Amino acid sequence: MSKRPLILVTNDDGITAPGIRTLISVMKEIGDVVVVAPDSPQSAMGHAITINSTLHVEKVVIDNGSQIEYSCSGTPADCVKLAVREVLDRKPDLCVSGINHGSNSSINVIYSGTMSAALEAGIESIPAIGFSLLDYNWGANFEHCKSFVKTITSNVLEHGLPDGVVLNVNLPNVEKKDIKGIKVCRQARANWEEEFDKRTNPMGREYYWLTGKFVNMDNGEDTDEWALEHNYVSIVPVQFDLTAHHAIQQLNSWDFGA
Amino acid sequence: MSKRPLILVTNDDGITAPGIRTLISVMKEIGDVVVVAPDSPQSAMGHAITINSTLHVEKVVIDNGSQIEYSCSGTPADCVKLAVREVLDRKPDLCVSGINHGSNSSINVIYSGTMSAALEAGIESIPAIGFSLLDYNWGANFEHCKSFVKTITSNVLEHGLPDGVVLNVNLPNVEKKDIKGIKVCRQARANWEEEFDKRTNPMGREYYWLTGKFVNMDNGEDTDEWALEHNYVSIVPVQFDLTAHHAIQQLNSWDFGA
Repeated sequence: MSKRPLILVTNDDGITAPGIRTLISVMKEIGDVVVVAPDSPQSAMGHAITINSTLHVEKVVIDNGSQIEYSCSGTPADCVKLAVREVLDRKPDLCVSGINHGSNSSINVIYSGTMSAALEAGIESIPAIGFSLLDYNWGANFEHCKSFVKTITSNVLEHGLPDGVVLNVNLPNVEKKDIKGIKVCRQARANWEEEFDKRTNPMGREYYWLTGKFVNMDNGEDTDEWALEHNYVSIVPVQFDLTAHHAIQQLNSWDFGA
Repeated sequence: MSKRPLILVTNDDGITAPGIRTLISVMKEIGDVVVVAPDSPQSAMGHAITINSTLHVEKVVIDNGSQIEYSCSGTPADCVKLAVREVLDRKPDLCVSGINHGSNSSINVIYSGTMSAALEAGIESIPAIGFSLLDYNWGANFEHCKSFVKTITSNVLEHGLPDGVVLNVNLPNVEKKDIKGIKVCRQARANWEEEFDKRTNPMGREYYWLTGKFVNMDNGEDTDEWALEHNYVSIVPVQFDLTAHHAIQQLNSWDFGA
């Protein structure tokens, strides 16, 4: 591209998280960067938006560089809405979200704040990508992610994305030399088998912590889980038309009476 | 069915909302009802789950009847997870969510706490339906919803639902005699054009309220928006495999280099 693209960067771990700092550093090589990200961690917020309380946006400087940054009191989806309507002078050419500290593969996409930001951008017809590293630690090493993030981003800027589609990219937590490549995948059929850790507080009242075990029920070699297990970077094209088109005909055979 | 089905009821407006009270009254005609619903409104929570704080569940009595009820400090998705793992003795035969005070048609499905509960049940392989009335008022009249809710629920219990599919049902806010019937639809392509109402607080700090205008860009007569505008009850089969399968081939033509 002759003109530098305008890139909106956000995440769900909060504006100071190492993952978004890495993403910003890569995006600065590609375009002009504006960051609008949550002022505190918003993981597992799904596609929440803030309608019953107020939102604050504040210009901040986190580290050196040409990027312009704003921290926002809202959810990742709020950040994208605010960026598009209030912060940016024009529609961005791209929105990237992440790099998330932890997987957003398979069913995790629907709980993911990282992906909800990307979906929100997609709804606004902005090409969008969510990036996640399979390491939940705050001190995770993102170095090996950089070249893959750059390659995928450059492809999206060059080719665009199909209407109504955003990308869910997950990166395995292995050394760069062990990554076998990039694979376009479908979302594996998997879920969480929750276990609630039941405790009693000092006042004698019971409460729960949500914990759980990830269960992959899908051995398909075309899935993101397969790719990640085999040290590929996975790309799943994700859509926000949730219609199960294949089910419409069957439902039309039902008797809904008068 | 010879045995009465076990029905889990939840919502996102909170356990005392008139919409869920109506839904409970209809479900009691069909089966044995257990309610696990948020103790306060959780609208626009998307598919949020509570991983960074504790959850409380309390047995409560809201009104008379055979139903057993629990109020929960979490999100709608939390309620379903807790119900399935901790509250219920066996997997329910059905999960219904709502009746939401306000539309969850078209793109609203992805912001909807009501539908996130239904999706969570679907992920657990429990047949699930979210119901919403196109009236945001707390004092909305739900009487005309009852027979449609019963008809659709009975069909789901009789036929089951395809694997990976839950139903998103929206009901127009008109008198019963004016409702033309029930229509199986696809999700309309629509979005919100947000407008942020910018204000200054007494300390001189700026803040925003999120407001917006709903824009339907999709005139298809097979959409939920069309059905609702023409006084039909809309049913959209919704899936939680978000893969845009049609985009995979195109992405595979990209050059991801080494």
